[in-house]
Amino acid sequence: VKRKFVPSLELVPRVLAGETPAIARLLSRAEAGHPECRDALARIYEHAGRAHVVGITGVPGSGKSTLVSVLAGLLRARGGKVGVVAVDPSSPWSGGAIMGDRIRMGDVAGDPGIFIRSMATRGALGGLARATLEAVDVLDAAGFGHVLVETVGIGQDEVEIAHATHTTVVVSAPGLGDDIQAIKAGILEVADVHVVSKCDRSDASRTIADLETMLALGHAAGWEAGWRSPVVGTSAVTREGFEELVSALDRHAAHLDGSDAGRARLRRIAEFRILKTAEELLRARFRHGRTGRVAELAARLAERRISPYAAGEHLLEVPERERTSP
Amino acid sequence: VKRKFVPSLELVPRVLAGETPAIARLLSRAEAGHPECRDALARIYEHAGRAHVVGITGVPGSGKSTLVSVLAGLLRARGGKVGVVAVDPSSPWSGGAIMGDRIRMGDVAGDPGIFIRSMATRGALGGLARATLEAVDVLDAAGFGHVLVETVGIGQDEVEIAHATHTTVVVSAPGLGDDIQAIKAGILEVADVHVVSKCDRSDASRTIADLETMLALGHAAGWEAGWRSPVVGTSAVTREGFEELVSALDRHAAHLDGSDAGRARLRRIAEFRILKTAEELLRARFRHGRTGRVAELAARLAERRISPYAAGEHLLEVPERERTSP
Repeated sequence: VKRKFVPSLELVPRVLAGETPAIARLLSRAEAGHPECRDALARIYEHAGRAHVVGITGVPGSGKSTLVSVLAGLLRARGGKVGVVAVDPSSPWSGGAIMGDRIRMGDVAGDPGIFIRSMATRGALGGLARATLEAVDVLDAAGFGHVLVETVGIGQDEVEIAHATHTTVVVSAPGLGDDIQAIKAGILEVADVHVVSKCDRSDASRTIADLETMLALGHAAGWEAGWRSPVVGTSAVTREGFEELVSALDRHAAHLDGSDAGRARLRRIAEFRILKTAEELLRARFRHGRTGRVAELAARLAERRISPYAAGEHLLEVPERERTSP
Repeated sequence: VKRKFVPSLELVPRVLAGETPAIARLLSRAEAGHPECRDALARIYEHAGRAHVVGITGVPGSGKSTLVSVLAGLLRARGGKVGVVAVDPSSPWSGGAIMGDRIRMGDVAGDPGIFIRSMATRGALGGLARATLEAVDVLDAAGFGHVLVETVGIGQDEVEIAHATHTTVVVSAPGLGDDIQAIKAGILEVADVHVVSKCDRSDASRTIADLETMLALGHAAGWEAGWRSPVVGTSAVTREGFEELVSALDRHAAHLDGSDAGRARLRRIAEFRILKTAEELLRARFRHGRTGRVAELAARLAERRISPYAAGEHLLEVPERERTSP
């Protein structure tokens, strides 16, 4: 039985009323980048802006998915609805083959007040940032008080996405390999809150001490007027540290609320979003133009009869706008 | 003593003559995105196109940096010059604090016929792909017969960069954690050549068998007309497998040479490059416009008085072009 196609604009009131099936359908269309849902997403955007959006990033093995699961459960226990958008190929939410680890899912499965969406990241098509931020909007507008955005802490786009939130949490863990440690050092600077997970391990205190030394030496920023990024140790096993983490998130939200720092943050998020949206429109123009002038440009570039900059300038100036709006 | 500034255009003949200091200076300017060097890079681009450009990607811990080191040494032993462009925060070339592992550097240090460049990846500014491809051009035009582009195999941009080469090598290794394995599965499809490193380990044969099963089941593509991606086991300890790897690279180069597959590959690389260059021009326009209309757009977006798509469309249509060319 094929479901009747419901225009995206008709889904909007249902999404705003918090209806799960409508949320799921609009999210799928947004992720696929269907032009048909653009007007609906514009409406959604108008209604969003109330959720506390928290980016959670960390290298593979840092335990961020487990952290997200426990955190979502705690926030949910306070009464509000909690949304999770996972942009992480290793995330258990993505249904990867790896997870016998049902504990993670067990914390949150079956509660309609928690909605989890895993974004496909196999995207040679790009658009990861655009799709993720739209998913956040949909959950925000649907009344989810907290939206957690989980991304793997490697990759330019992935780190930028976690940073395009109100509060960015960077998760570290003891006992990772050297390759991973080196990568970890590169993302510390985006943290509003540092978490060291797996604090039931004996080597965790060393990880916390190292992190605090780095922060004290100023090697990992996390300072702005009125806010110093705290370091919180957590353990999903003993559940220690999670109340402190929730408290840190609340304090950061309060720090942003109505302040210059908060306005600057919203402005930075808006700038990032404009840029990413424009990039995606450019990609669409590019794809649609493949058989025409763009194909000609690519051929000339491949033959080295034009420079990359000149070709890029030409692409930006292709006069026929292949508008894909309905 | 401050060096006199040499205009980039004057560096071009020196680069073409293979002079190391000129190569290093032009690479630094290209990486920084100095508009002053655009005309020089356009000249460089005209002269590039002879090198065999090999992308080498793999998850952290896969041993790709070691592989690159040994491979560079072997290719160099054949007589040609070998360039390495590393886009990997965990790369030993990047001078990270982690490496006591001098063996890796020892293979290649001190030979002017090998040039290694590590790209900064801490780029909230973006432009990683553009900068990397320009570095490849410079080395190519300077007469390096092979240019190896090493990227970490996580992150949309990073994987795309490794794929924007003539031959893409994906490095797997035995004994990685589940989080890493899950991510690994997502990059297998871009491989023209699979390498399983650390084959001196007893569990390596299992990794090779698993990979070959996945390939046979078609879960990881790597097929095109006339080419089936081989699986090569290597060990930097015993040096086994490296001759076979070099042979696979040569066979893939021959497969592309003058063929439809080769033309399609060059076309795909050109398309990627146009798009990435246009995106960067867009970013530049954006940055330069921050105080003007772009700032106004961001403010309206932050206040939800305009939708992201509408703001993105406006950005693409900002009429004053802030040209940054000299």
